[in-house]
Amino acid sequence: MEDLYLKRVVVALGGNAILQFNEKGTVGDQIANLRRTSAQLAPIIASWYQVVITHGNGPQVGNILIQNERAKHEVPPMPLDVCGAESQGQIGYLLNQALSSELKRMGKSTEVCTLMSQVVVDPEDEAFDNPSKPIGPWLSLEGMNRSRREGETWIEHPGRGWRKVVASPKPVRILNARTIESLLSNGFTVIACGGGGVPVIEDAQGDLRGIEAVIDKDLASACMAAEIKAHILLILTDVSTVFLNFGTSEQKPIRQIEVSELRRLFEKGQFPAGSIGPKVEAALQFVERGGERALIARLDEAEAALKGKTGTTVTA
Amino acid sequence: MEDLYLKRVVVALGGNAILQFNEKGTVGDQIANLRRTSAQLAPIIASWYQVVITHGNGPQVGNILIQNERAKHEVPPMPLDVCGAESQGQIGYLLNQALSSELKRMGKSTEVCTLMSQVVVDPEDEAFDNPSKPIGPWLSLEGMNRSRREGETWIEHPGRGWRKVVASPKPVRILNARTIESLLSNGFTVIACGGGGVPVIEDAQGDLRGIEAVIDKDLASACMAAEIKAHILLILTDVSTVFLNFGTSEQKPIRQIEVSELRRLFEKGQFPAGSIGPKVEAALQFVERGGERALIARLDEAEAALKGKTGTTVTA
Repeated sequence: MEDLYLKRVVVALGGNAILQFNEKGTVGDQIANLRRTSAQLAPIIASWYQVVITHGNGPQVGNILIQNERAKHEVPPMPLDVCGAESQGQIGYLLNQALSSELKRMGKSTEVCTLMSQVVVDPEDEAFDNPSKPIGPWLSLEGMNRSRREGETWIEHPGRGWRKVVASPKPVRILNARTIESLLSNGFTVIACGGGGVPVIEDAQGDLRGIEAVIDKDLASACMAAEIKAHILLILTDVSTVFLNFGTSEQKPIRQIEVSELRRLFEKGQFPAGSIGPKVEAALQFVERGGERALIARLDEAEAALKGKTGTTVTA
Repeated sequence: MEDLYLKRVVVALGGNAILQFNEKGTVGDQIANLRRTSAQLAPIIASWYQVVITHGNGPQVGNILIQNERAKHEVPPMPLDVCGAESQGQIGYLLNQALSSELKRMGKSTEVCTLMSQVVVDPEDEAFDNPSKPIGPWLSLEGMNRSRREGETWIEHPGRGWRKVVASPKPVRILNARTIESLLSNGFTVIACGGGGVPVIEDAQGDLRGIEAVIDKDLASACMAAEIKAHILLILTDVSTVFLNFGTSEQKPIRQIEVSELRRLFEKGQFPAGSIGPKVEAALQFVERGGERALIARLDEAEAALKGKTGTTVTA
């Protein structure tokens, strides 16, 4: 077996690591799931890896946006970037706590830390011409007209009402790459890029400004993994592998694949945009930018996937 | 003049660094104030210091609690510890952004990072016998009865309604001291212990659990400053110095004082608990735990205070 000593790995947690499909998102739900998730992650941290953990924030930031809307006559509502930062605080805190506790239980003294993350995007990204990511509460026509600000796009869904849609631009650069590298080199475990990081744009003077957009968390993880020179990007989800011809009689698991072949299948539309597509794209981008390998695997098979026993492995 | 090269300093920002007295807390208010604050902090970071910045969160966590209350029929409300973590996300993000922008404008490439912070408190702390810190929205008797959970203390204020009060226990230990030390040693600027950090208790197995309490942010800053072996604790507020016999005809600024003398004045009740008291107490604790000096000064005189030109300096 190859020597895994001190491999640097970015672990991108799927939504099911924090909330199950039918849960509303109480703190009890989140704590229970994050304990289960930490029990998967702690052995990895305790063995051969320098680990950065990223996570989504969809249900949590959605809830925070509803809270902002419902209290808006008393409390100035915060824009999406600030709500995203709040969700990083919420999830990062709970995950950090669960993971620190699990490591302590195993007798490990590794310090886990959570970094607030900002990710630079290109204001000219074509995603801004076509906002498509729905966020926040459904509102009535009247409610929408009261809430809508200049430049925003809202879409109507018959029977449910109106909802804001925002752009999902590509991550260009994460702001704390050097910080994360330093922390890993010094033995710390890092939680970062929660929810894909807060999207910011940078003007000619270097001034940063948050914008109302959402960055795909798997693409942000791939961008970060490449920047911090990780060896492995491990994308965790609820399926054991990526499948060829998914949902047809020809369905076949992909256990090991070269990046050029996966790119070819991706361009042919093998992987649906609404499900495994962004994960495959993230794996492609990481390996194409020089990463050693990308893995897509089930949360409860994370360690086995790192050892090559399951999951889909994408190599150069 | 003494050599200040690579002194390690914890800068505790006062509430006025983020919001002015009469502001409601819009994102625009916060950004404007944090730009002004960053213009004070950036020259310090750019010169001779390893800097950790701490800040309060009173108005922000109060707003988040109101948002949770108003949306509680749709969104599971989060307990105070999670709301505190969200406020760390909100303020940390905005401060990090403002400070990174200001440093970039000055041509500095220092990376600023924001760490989510948890602070261990003692479950036997006597503060738990006497909860006194009001938090969250005012409610009617009926609203209070609906919201109140077992074990909570609420107090009535005639004419305004009912409000929850929580304990303000002493900080015992911060969870990421080694992380912060490593970051400072490697040249990064750190934002941490926002709102005094999220209070957590640790059981015999090392398991951490958040609790509904509030840690004074100046005391948390002093605790952290001692643990990371900072040379200087710089507490910024809206007065130029601490005063002797404040508000009397005998009022006199204290420019330089030994810790034993300040302790004597503190025990005599010279410094009111509702205003300068906790700041004086934080300064005392830091120097008594071995810190080189503590400074209490105005935000816009921060650099001058570090150079000994203004403020109150407390030494061993």
